[in-house]
Parts: sequence; structure tokens; C-alpha cells
Amino acid sequence: MNLKQLSRMLELSQTTVSRALNGYPEVAEETRRRVVDAARRHGYRPNPSARRLATGKAGMIGYVMPTGASVDIDPHFVEFLSGLGDYARTHELDLTLSPSTIEDEEMTYRRIVANKQVDAVYVSSPRPRDARIALLNDLGIPFIVHGRSEGLDFDYPFLDIDNEAAFHEAARLLIQLGHRRIALINGNADQTFAIHRERGLRRALAAGGVELPPHRVRAMPMTEENGYRAASDFLAARERPTAIVCSSLLMTLGVTRALRDAGLSVPGDVSLIAHDDVFPFLKPENFPVPLATTRSSIRAAGQRIAERLAARIAGVEDGARGEVWAVDLVVRASVAQVKG
Amino acid sequence: MNLKQLSRMLELSQTTVSRALNGYPEVAEETRRRVVDAARRHGYRPNPSARRLATGKAGMIGYVMPTGASVDIDPHFVEFLSGLGDYARTHELDLTLSPSTIEDEEMTYRRIVANKQVDAVYVSSPRPRDARIALLNDLGIPFIVHGRSEGLDFDYPFLDIDNEAAFHEAARLLIQLGHRRIALINGNADQTFAIHRERGLRRALAAGGVELPPHRVRAMPMTEENGYRAASDFLAARERPTAIVCSSLLMTLGVTRALRDAGLSVPGDVSLIAHDDVFPFLKPENFPVPLATTRSSIRAAGQRIAERLAARIAGVEDGARGEVWAVDLVVRASVAQVKG
Repeated sequence: MNLKQLSRMLELSQTTVSRALNGYPEVAEETRRRVVDAARRHGYRPNPSARRLATGKAGMIGYVMPTGASVDIDPHFVEFLSGLGDYARTHELDLTLSPSTIEDEEMTYRRIVANKQVDAVYVSSPRPRDARIALLNDLGIPFIVHGRSEGLDFDYPFLDIDNEAAFHEAARLLIQLGHRRIALINGNADQTFAIHRERGLRRALAAGGVELPPHRVRAMPMTEENGYRAASDFLAARERPTAIVCSSLLMTLGVTRALRDAGLSVPGDVSLIAHDDVFPFLKPENFPVPLATTRSSIRAAGQRIAERLAARIAGVEDGARGEVWAVDLVVRASVAQVKG
Repeated sequence: MNLKQLSRMLELSQTTVSRALNGYPEVAEETRRRVVDAARRHGYRPNPSARRLATGKAGMIGYVMPTGASVDIDPHFVEFLSGLGDYARTHELDLTLSPSTIEDEEMTYRRIVANKQVDAVYVSSPRPRDARIALLNDLGIPFIVHGRSEGLDFDYPFLDIDNEAAFHEAARLLIQLGHRRIALINGNADQTFAIHRERGLRRALAAGGVELPPHRVRAMPMTEENGYRAASDFLAARERPTAIVCSSLLMTLGVTRALRDAGLSVPGDVSLIAHDDVFPFLKPENFPVPLATTRSSIRAAGQRIAERLAARIAGVEDGARGEVWAVDLVVRASVAQVKG
């Protein structure tokens, strides 16, 4: 079935059908749904060349994917992709991953924009003064940042979770429970989410008159092994922490291993709180001692980013709207009052 | 003329030529003009429309990605993507993920092939008599299967690891160590890799005169939680197994939790062997007791699949070559002789 046949069947103009399928705002929602249903039923999907001719759109969301022997993609990316794909599918969008070394990132963005390969892109793992955001802003392609940068002199659209408030609340709870020696195991220090988490934790500690000396902070890729190393260092110190806040569940597996090796118990000797992106393959309630978490679904974030990108492609959303999601603090058995 | 030839002719680096063609400000105007002129004169134009006109190629590898509320993408997919992207990058290929429900998979393949969106596709998680493989064979697009099907009446190109031999060797070692009550925790029973692993295990057991009763086999999605449930069931049985073979490291986390809950030790009470796809975020040597594994890098498989797809797109590889990689059996402290 082609566009002409589909349009005739629906008794709509070809323009209306095209616009409905591409999510243009001027088509009524009821009409859009009728068109999309009929298109699906009859296996009609505009081919990219026809779509590009009719609408100027490629039907693609782009992502420049870091690759290289030394690059490990965080496993939570699968959950983000699940959410993004789930929404994109219902809006006839595919996703193009353009692999690139870190050094060639800028060139790769320029290429996919210049080639009109994609209608919009998203940026992940932003850093302060992130050059990718300035570049995309200049290039004028619709984009959204997953996370936030800092220190840029312009606004840009983003979706972030409130990492600062999340770790502030986690640390505040620990202080209320009497903890004074609190340690942080964080993700890479050059990423904004990690900076925000440390900032929130420090703010709560400062408010409680508690210090965070450098030897109680670690920042590194979020693997089980790194969690083990960081915790082992902390536990070998003269005054070991009575509580550890950790940026990932996989890292926290390593923390619990270090505690076991040291013959220490949770929460009797050390309280634990970790950030949970909601990962069906490893659940905090299934840790040896159920793990207290700051929780926000990264799959939901993927869905929302696809939704906003589709809206920006269709011209329904514009401007530099920042969206910040509150994070739940879920208390479980891994936190307790500090021992007298 | 390709980028390399053009660069050599101009006595400039490939980076400079690319930057000149993509309008980078830091390239001197005189150089830019010289590059653009030469490119035009020699018909070098890297954008996809031009590429498609010149070569009929889109420069894209396609993958139909299962999505939906009930679909969880296995986290090892990030490692596969890393490998695939790493090779694709050096061969000017991008990757298009087309999200689809399981029900619409066939339609999605038909669409991306009909639209010439992609030059080749790969298929993952194949099942016996997999309809996707028959479809792609009919459609005539270059493809490779990651894994294998069974029961198809034609040959097709694939890359698989020798799952049957891997679990055969694991079980044979356990039998040599005197184990007679051996249990299996496997991935989804409808996938060929899981069928092959069970087959290998059964073959070794049969050769040793050992039975594998139904209550010592579980097959399900490979999460920590499912590993815990399966192992808990085994350990509650009147005659509990003295050894467990498990299809994933994340599941094995759940197995070790169940053993801890039951007050049992590894390998004193139960020996463990698990399959390891080589996952930098969770390493078998870092389990409470270092874990024996059947090991094969899924990142290397991603690289190899990109390499073969590029060769098939270029017409350098054709035919239905199947490639099967041997799997290492890596013995660590989690296996021991059965208690007298």
C-alpha cells in the first residue's frame, strides 16, 4: 500500500496523512490516531526518501556513541535504550548510533547533521562546559541533553534527575541517624551527575557540622571492582567510615564484598545507601541486606527523551526547557543508627 | 576515489580533508577551497545521499531491537555494541536500531529492507526454526546471525560460540571431581544457546552415567533474582545438588545469595561454574569465592560480526559460512571434589 492508496482509503489528503504520520501539531489527535492505526494495519510506512521529500525528515534520532578499546559502555544504557525505543517505535522513529572515538566526536556530530541523516540527537553523560552542547546549539539541530552541563553561557533543553537533592537527602538521613564519618564512592569526577551528587552530600554534611575529608571520597568508573577497591581503602583507614554512599548498584556489590572480607556487617558496622537507576537484572531489595537507595528509572528517562525529541522534531516543543525529576529516597535495612 | 586517496593526492591528513569538507572554521579558506575543488573534480562526496547515488549503499548496519514494557534488553548488549561500533567506526558504517514489538518484527525487517535504509542486518538471540532468518534469506539482504538456529532447511551465515562443548566440558570436569547431583540454571528455553548448553551438559552426564532429572533444570531470563529463586528451589529439595552450572554471572550472584541464606559454602557444599561473556562491570575472579567459568568475549563477537557484515556489503564475503568459536573453561576456586 502506498501513500496515495492509504489517503484515498481514509478519505484524507496525502498531505494530511503525511503530516499525521510525522506528528505535525496541526493534525487533530483523533485523526492522527486513525491514520497511524490504518498505516500499521496495512503495513504502510513512508520510505525515507519519500518521507524526506514530503516532509524534509529522516525519521531518525541520532546518538554519537563513544567507542574504542578503553571505552566501556555503562550497562544501564540498555535500560535507557529500552525506554527510548519503546516511545520511538510508536512514533515511527528509528535510532542511529554513530560510533566515534572521543577525539572525533565533534566531527561525527558535524557529519550526521550536515548529511541530514538524523532529525534530532541526544547527548548523554554531559560534563561541565560540554563542547558537544555548544556545537549542537550552533548547528541548529533539535537536541536534548540527558543530564546537565554547567558553566555554559546559554540555556539548552535537558532532562536530568535531581542528583544533588538525592545525595543531600541520603546524607541528611545518615546524619540524623548519628553518623559523622560518611564516605562517598562516586562515578567519574568529570561528569556533572557525579559533581552534583558530591555537592549535595557535602551540603548536607556541612549543615550537620560534619567534614568530608579527601580520603573519604573516590570517583571512578562504576564497576564492581572499583567499588571493592574504594571500600577496601576506606576500611583500612585508621578511622573507618560508619556509612558509605555509593553512586551505583554494581559498585555497591564490590562494597559489600569488601565489608565481608573485613568481617564487618551491614548495617551494624557500616550503613549503605546507593543510587539505583532501576535495573531489572540486579535489584537493591535482593542485596544480602536489602539496600537503601536513591531511585530513579533510567528507562522512564529514555522514554521521556524520545517523547521530547519527537515533539521538537514536529515543532511542538521549542526553546531551552530544562526538566528536573525528583529522586525517591527508599529506606531499607542497610541503614541504621550509628553505634554508640 | 575514497577519503584516503583524496588525502594522499592533496598531501593532507584525512582529518584535515574531512574537516575542510565539513566546513570546520580552523581550516584555512585556501586549503578548504583546494579540497572542495579536488573532491568535486574527482567525484568524492561523503554524504549518504551522494554515497547512495554513487554506490547504492546507505553506510548502515541494521538491527531490529525488541522493545515493549515486558522486554528487558540483556545488559551484555552494551558489550556487543562496543565491539560492533569499534569496528564499524573504522569502516565508515553507522548502526540503525529499529525498535519493534515482537509481533511486528517481520514487518519491521521488511520495511528497513524495502526502504534500503540499511546495507546489511544482524540477528540476535536466535531460536530454533527462526522465522527472521528465513525472511532475511528470502529478502536477499546481506545478514549474519549472532548465534545459531536449528531445524532450518537451508544454510545461512552465522557466528556462534560452541555452547554445547562449553557446558559439556564444565559438566565433565564436575563428574571427574565425583559430582553426581548436578543442576543447571539456564537462559530462556526457547533460545538456541540455552538448548545447546543443556544438550552439552546432558551429554557429559549421560557419558558419566549420571541423570539430570527435570527438578534439577531451570530456564528463565538471566537476572539475579531468577538465579536466587532457582537455587533456592534446588537447595530446598530432599537431595540438594552438589554442583550448579549457570548460564550467566548476574544469575550466579543470586545463586551465591541463596547459598549464603542456606548457610552453605562454595565449594565445600556446592561447586559452581558459570558462563562469562566477559563483562568489565562484574568479573568472575571477584566473586566471594573466585568463580570458575566458561568464557567467551561478546565484545569480540560484536567486532567480528561488524567485520563480516562489512565484507558482505563489499562483496568480499558471500555464501552461508558458519563460524563457531571455541570457549575457554577457566577453573577457579569455586569447584572442588565432592565431599566423601
